[in-house]
Amino acid sequence: MTMEQPTIGDAFGDMITDAYAVRTGIGPRPLAGGRLPRPVIEVIERDDGLINGAPADHYLDEPDAWQPHDHRALRLCRGHVLDIGVGAGRIAIELQSRGMAVTGLDTSRGAIEVSRRRGLRDTVLATVDEYARAAARYDTFLLLGNNLGLLESRERAPVMLDALARLANPGARILAQGADPYGTSDPVHVGYHERNRARGRFGGQLRLRLRYRMVASEWFDYLNCSAEELETLVAGTPWRLTSIDDRDRPYYLAVMELMR
Amino acid sequence: MTMEQPTIGDAFGDMITDAYAVRTGIGPRPLAGGRLPRPVIEVIERDDGLINGAPADHYLDEPDAWQPHDHRALRLCRGHVLDIGVGAGRIAIELQSRGMAVTGLDTSRGAIEVSRRRGLRDTVLATVDEYARAAARYDTFLLLGNNLGLLESRERAPVMLDALARLANPGARILAQGADPYGTSDPVHVGYHERNRARGRFGGQLRLRLRYRMVASEWFDYLNCSAEELETLVAGTPWRLTSIDDRDRPYYLAVMELMR
Repeated sequence: MTMEQPTIGDAFGDMITDAYAVRTGIGPRPLAGGRLPRPVIEVIERDDGLINGAPADHYLDEPDAWQPHDHRALRLCRGHVLDIGVGAGRIAIELQSRGMAVTGLDTSRGAIEVSRRRGLRDTVLATVDEYARAAARYDTFLLLGNNLGLLESRERAPVMLDALARLANPGARILAQGADPYGTSDPVHVGYHERNRARGRFGGQLRLRLRYRMVASEWFDYLNCSAEELETLVAGTPWRLTSIDDRDRPYYLAVMELMR
Repeated sequence: MTMEQPTIGDAFGDMITDAYAVRTGIGPRPLAGGRLPRPVIEVIERDDGLINGAPADHYLDEPDAWQPHDHRALRLCRGHVLDIGVGAGRIAIELQSRGMAVTGLDTSRGAIEVSRRRGLRDTVLATVDEYARAAARYDTFLLLGNNLGLLESRERAPVMLDALARLANPGARILAQGADPYGTSDPVHVGYHERNRARGRFGGQLRLRLRYRMVASEWFDYLNCSAEELETLVAGTPWRLTSIDDRDRPYYLAVMELMR
């Protein structure tokens, strides 16, 4: 007897839909085998066989439960804001409630649906590249909740940064929250970083997929990089890295400003 | 790029060791990539591709956090007790503290080590079959925490029940907590039950493996059966099913008594 492979689908969206149902009681809740309530868990596989589970509820956290750098990021928002990888709308809904113009972008249909049910009015189901063909223009781009990782790789980062420049008003900024992966002494991670570098990848260039119940995402790169590595990625793009706030190390908040 | 397969090992033991470290601060804690504390999560894969994560901390729960049927089971213990699948020693340590003679049996080296560190004095690292060759004799056998599932299958259950009879004093009883899986309307589970039956298995005869970080257990059968199915399993063995306490449906506490 061998294991069936999971179906490729919107694992993140299915997970966030269930997490929303568990937190609010709205919509069908995931049916556990038994009677006891169970938190919704995000399961992440890495290509070296590492698997990790973490409660998904934080995607729905209200501002009082946020990390300090999220609050500091919000104070830097101005003008029309594009929240990239909006997820359950945690950040975008707060900006909207403060009267700011904010658009939530995600590639997960389930995430967009949950964001809208939670009250986010302006949402886009698309990749950054697809959306860069639109006429919309923004003053602030958000990559919060570790979404600096969406820069993916040495190859992908300049393409994405160019796409954001096409969507940008003059003087626009990117606020991106990253995580420096190199403080660990865990041999599982240190060895992974070394094997990555031997293949020409960034040490913290994770190859991941999400799994939720019967569904898996496609494999994707997600970049945990140091501030120094980020600086090399931004060089040669229309953006300039103007500040790194690393008070919540190993997490940091990077500000990039458009050079026009 | 393909995914590496996880190493086969003591996934349960590794998980319980980390859960113990997180709860007590004793021993090295699992190194998360970041700075935020993370609960230890048990990840269970089923052979149809279903994956589920659940916090592992409950294995260490003190009696005030237990389910009501666990307390009712303890009131039925008498004489020398063998706790089968002792895990982190949750039940056995409480019995020991009440002055009862209790042995904790597990096939997980990590689980036995955590039980001993938590103070359990009498432990055995073995399968039931291996231990049935020993000279020890017991008056009560515990299969709590859903460990009725260790009966596995139609083929395995009578073999295990015979082994327990060899370890039994006259008048011994088995206290086993099971879960009736057939109350669900979730098509993922209903379909699984149907495919199981079509292959001659019990509907709730789950084929599972645990995963924890880089390690996976072997695949194993774990039986969620109804009380009626349990009755058919016990027939023809040296045991008699004398009561089912299903006040905490779908969970139930079965009592089996030795017919000599």
